[in-house]
Amino acid sequence: MKDKDLGSLFYDGLKDIYYAERKILKALPKMARAAQSEMLRNAFLKHKEETETQKERLDKVFEALGKRAQGKTCPAIDGILEEGEEIMDEYKGMASIDAGLVAAAQAVEHYEMARYTTLSTWAKLLGHTDAANLLLETLAEEQATDKALMQLAKTDANKAAMAA
Amino acid sequence: MKDKDLGSLFYDGLKDIYYAERKILKALPKMARAAQSEMLRNAFLKHKEETETQKERLDKVFEALGKRAQGKTCPAIDGILEEGEEIMDEYKGMASIDAGLVAAAQAVEHYEMARYTTLSTWAKLLGHTDAANLLLETLAEEQATDKALMQLAKTDANKAAMAA
Repeated sequence: MKDKDLGSLFYDGLKDIYYAERKILKALPKMARAAQSEMLRNAFLKHKEETETQKERLDKVFEALGKRAQGKTCPAIDGILEEGEEIMDEYKGMASIDAGLVAAAQAVEHYEMARYTTLSTWAKLLGHTDAANLLLETLAEEQATDKALMQLAKTDANKAAMAA
Repeated sequence: MKDKDLGSLFYDGLKDIYYAERKILKALPKMARAAQSEMLRNAFLKHKEETETQKERLDKVFEALGKRAQGKTCPAIDGILEEGEEIMDEYKGMASIDAGLVAAAQAVEHYEMARYTTLSTWAKLLGHTDAANLLLETLAEEQATDKALMQLAKTDANKAAMAA
């Protein structure tokens, strides 16, 4: 059997994040509905639009590689989103839920930042310049989202602390 | 039923990361054994020692809050580590495995950075200054580990790209 090489790791990683983006797309409207503050609700809806673009960008990456766009079950994002579901169940309608939702969203962003950092590095090394640029574009968006969430985290946790 | 407040979110979050640290402690020796390069193997073993200290720091945080140190199943870390196991199975003994292992370790670090950022913010807002300082100490270590992994990522992926 031929060794599976970096190209194979790269393709597997793309399938993993493709699956993840589609799961996140389904989770965001639920998170928006669960949010108590309008600001957080809007942040989730805005991020849903961005996530749609990010999914399309991955379609372009697969295309650039001449490979079929396909997902592969990603237990990491399943687990991260499951923790978000737990928060939505256990803190439903409570003043503290927004702080919990922001924390859940930040865990999602951090997972994506780790993956897009790796994938863009591998794309560059493999000489897939177009793919690398598309992946770096998404990475920059995820970093900006994480920064915005960090601000909301302070506001929402503050409100929750005062309501306690 | 009384609303569950930020203090409850904080305590739940501590139990989640306590479980995660203990799972990571078990995973690191396996990752060290799977690594092909001595540099990566040593990095995992060094991080195992740090993780032991981080777990002990959490014991002190629980103690400072007058709460029992206990874990709570964290599906996120279970999923993230499961992806690491997949890499170890599918790329066993191959030149590309180190690049995959570094990527898996970075996903773990990013999860921890997200959680410690949130927990230290909440600790401060709740007035648990000692707990906040302990959590920030671990956060700084995780950030340093991620930076070191980023360097290894470039080296290991480079080697894998050349071996292909």
